[in-house]
Amino acid sequence: MLNDSSLTTPYLLLDKVKFRRNIRRLYDHIDSLHCQIRPHLKTLRTVQSAPWLLRDRASPATVSTLAEAEAFAAAGYRNILYAVGIAPDKLPRIAACLRLGAYVHLLLDSLTQAQAISAYGQQHQVAFSVFIEIDCDGHRGGIKPDDSALTDIGAYLQQNGMHVEGVLTHAGESYHCRTQDEIAQAARAECQAAIKAAKRLRAAGVTCPVVSVGSTPTAHAVRDLDGVTEVRAGVFSTFDLFMTNLGVCTADDIALSVVTTVIGQNAEKGWLFVDAGWMAMSRDRGTASQKTDYGYGLVCDSEGRSTGLLLSSTNQEHGIIAIPPDSGHQVTDFSLGTRLRILPNHACATAGMHTRYQVMDSQSGEHEVWHRVTGW
Amino acid sequence: MLNDSSLTTPYLLLDKVKFRRNIRRLYDHIDSLHCQIRPHLKTLRTVQSAPWLLRDRASPATVSTLAEAEAFAAAGYRNILYAVGIAPDKLPRIAACLRLGAYVHLLLDSLTQAQAISAYGQQHQVAFSVFIEIDCDGHRGGIKPDDSALTDIGAYLQQNGMHVEGVLTHAGESYHCRTQDEIAQAARAECQAAIKAAKRLRAAGVTCPVVSVGSTPTAHAVRDLDGVTEVRAGVFSTFDLFMTNLGVCTADDIALSVVTTVIGQNAEKGWLFVDAGWMAMSRDRGTASQKTDYGYGLVCDSEGRSTGLLLSSTNQEHGIIAIPPDSGHQVTDFSLGTRLRILPNHACATAGMHTRYQVMDSQSGEHEVWHRVTGW
Repeated sequence: MLNDSSLTTPYLLLDKVKFRRNIRRLYDHIDSLHCQIRPHLKTLRTVQSAPWLLRDRASPATVSTLAEAEAFAAAGYRNILYAVGIAPDKLPRIAACLRLGAYVHLLLDSLTQAQAISAYGQQHQVAFSVFIEIDCDGHRGGIKPDDSALTDIGAYLQQNGMHVEGVLTHAGESYHCRTQDEIAQAARAECQAAIKAAKRLRAAGVTCPVVSVGSTPTAHAVRDLDGVTEVRAGVFSTFDLFMTNLGVCTADDIALSVVTTVIGQNAEKGWLFVDAGWMAMSRDRGTASQKTDYGYGLVCDSEGRSTGLLLSSTNQEHGIIAIPPDSGHQVTDFSLGTRLRILPNHACATAGMHTRYQVMDSQSGEHEVWHRVTGW
Repeated sequence: MLNDSSLTTPYLLLDKVKFRRNIRRLYDHIDSLHCQIRPHLKTLRTVQSAPWLLRDRASPATVSTLAEAEAFAAAGYRNILYAVGIAPDKLPRIAACLRLGAYVHLLLDSLTQAQAISAYGQQHQVAFSVFIEIDCDGHRGGIKPDDSALTDIGAYLQQNGMHVEGVLTHAGESYHCRTQDEIAQAARAECQAAIKAAKRLRAAGVTCPVVSVGSTPTAHAVRDLDGVTEVRAGVFSTFDLFMTNLGVCTADDIALSVVTTVIGQNAEKGWLFVDAGWMAMSRDRGTASQKTDYGYGLVCDSEGRSTGLLLSSTNQEHGIIAIPPDSGHQVTDFSLGTRLRILPNHACATAGMHTRYQVMDSQSGEHEVWHRVTGW
């Protein structure tokens, strides 16, 4: 009973039973490796998800916008990493969070940033807490663990009254792995890079209590976290078709879908029209480069059972389900008003198109509405 | 002076001078053809844009969601076409708008829909006003102008107390045209299809006062609107790089951009990192299939002058500007904190990622914040 006909479509449905099960799976795994999780809250971006994602208000969390940092700080969360490289114009808002009593840690990877932070901090008597970003795979930002700039940055921050909380790396390239072995290898490389960087900083006299690694694929694949203090992951709570293609989950694990209604048919072309276009699904086509291309999403019936059909194309508020002749389905199977559920390519992108989520618990029958923190 | 350093990035900037100029251009063109415009409000989806897009509250408007219809009806707008095929579950919300005194017209293309609307209307004593969708180019929905179903639907609606306001067609295939001649041909085909359908309905005794055509490319290309009563267009007020590629506007006409900040550099790779990822730009890559692929957007300086560089790739909150060796630019030209503006591939998609727009008028110096109608 996950559907509610009193809601007009499209709407985002979060299956709370699957959501809780996915979270439990990663916590069990990381607990067994004697490490802790710093969940990335960017997928759902709602304070209402926090009681399930975080053990308590002192638990480490990751965010990708200042708007999230502010919302979580205002709600009493105390250990928040803003995991996007810092620019000086954002420091006043970070300082305001610190005054609320929340540690909002910054991320940087250059001496220029360290100098800017230190200058602002000294001028305004704020001791910022900093993570230094380490590049483990050439994916995006960060400095190499053996780069001399690493210790220069750490020493500069510490000498100027800032706090080096830790090092952080993100195995973004694990999203392009083709096998479980490749993901496991990415997980090892991620840990090795972060541990090496932390050792070099400590040897140079820089405090560096935290060694932070993670991505959803590597967090599930990692088998040894010795020397690592925390693992970050984001999409693990909802999963999506991209993660299904990577072998990290099954389609049945996906907790997030868009409920849509059949609004028209073109029998000649074998097309169904639904009211979930890219405004409801997002423009994300991440599975296009993977082993199975799911178009704009996998079409399920109203109870979440896969039809095997795809949301083939989208306009702003229209989706087209092109029914292949050999699919065992035909247009007339889906009459006007039929409700369907579309599993997304990328949960972070699809959730980002919605300001509210309909959260249904099929065990308790409870229905909640969660509100997304919008903007930056 | 379109930038405001008190705003943290990323944010959506609307250049009101260009916005007004773009609107004036299409109004002048359609006025000269003795026709009227029914602007599609889906690009910006804000009631605050209406005084520029619509002549008055009785002027015809188009929306793509019930949330917009409700917001515009509540603000006193009286002639609103909900231009997405209707499903029966949405009728109560339409009926509520009608009770506010707004004509919210429905769109349909099947007898099944006509029957569902009539049944609900008769049961609740509501005379719905309906547009019948005509297929002029096989793009999406609609019935062919010579299909016998057209007059069956019209007659059925009228006999059951519903009002047939008109026929509507949308030359969606014009987005794939390669030349101005092709666009002009699409415009002619669009008009011919709609006029033919209206004539058939009228000959069958069905009222059909409105003959509605349009898409942004065809609205600018059309030269003869004899027999047509209104033209719809959406993205004409802001334009975007997709329209630039189609030759409908120049990049300098684009009124909408995302202001972003340089947050890091990778000198070895020639990469700049900025804080506009796909959450700020959208995942839209529509220009990938056009003559110039603009990546995730064209990078301009803070005053809006093109650098020639592209936003090459994006993550959720990170954008990467890969600087080609022969571009005349290098990473060190863009120091930490530098502000840039990114012109979007698709204004409707980029605007959809923002709940607020910073609207700057460089002539008056006025700065407004416009609020988007979110959800469905």
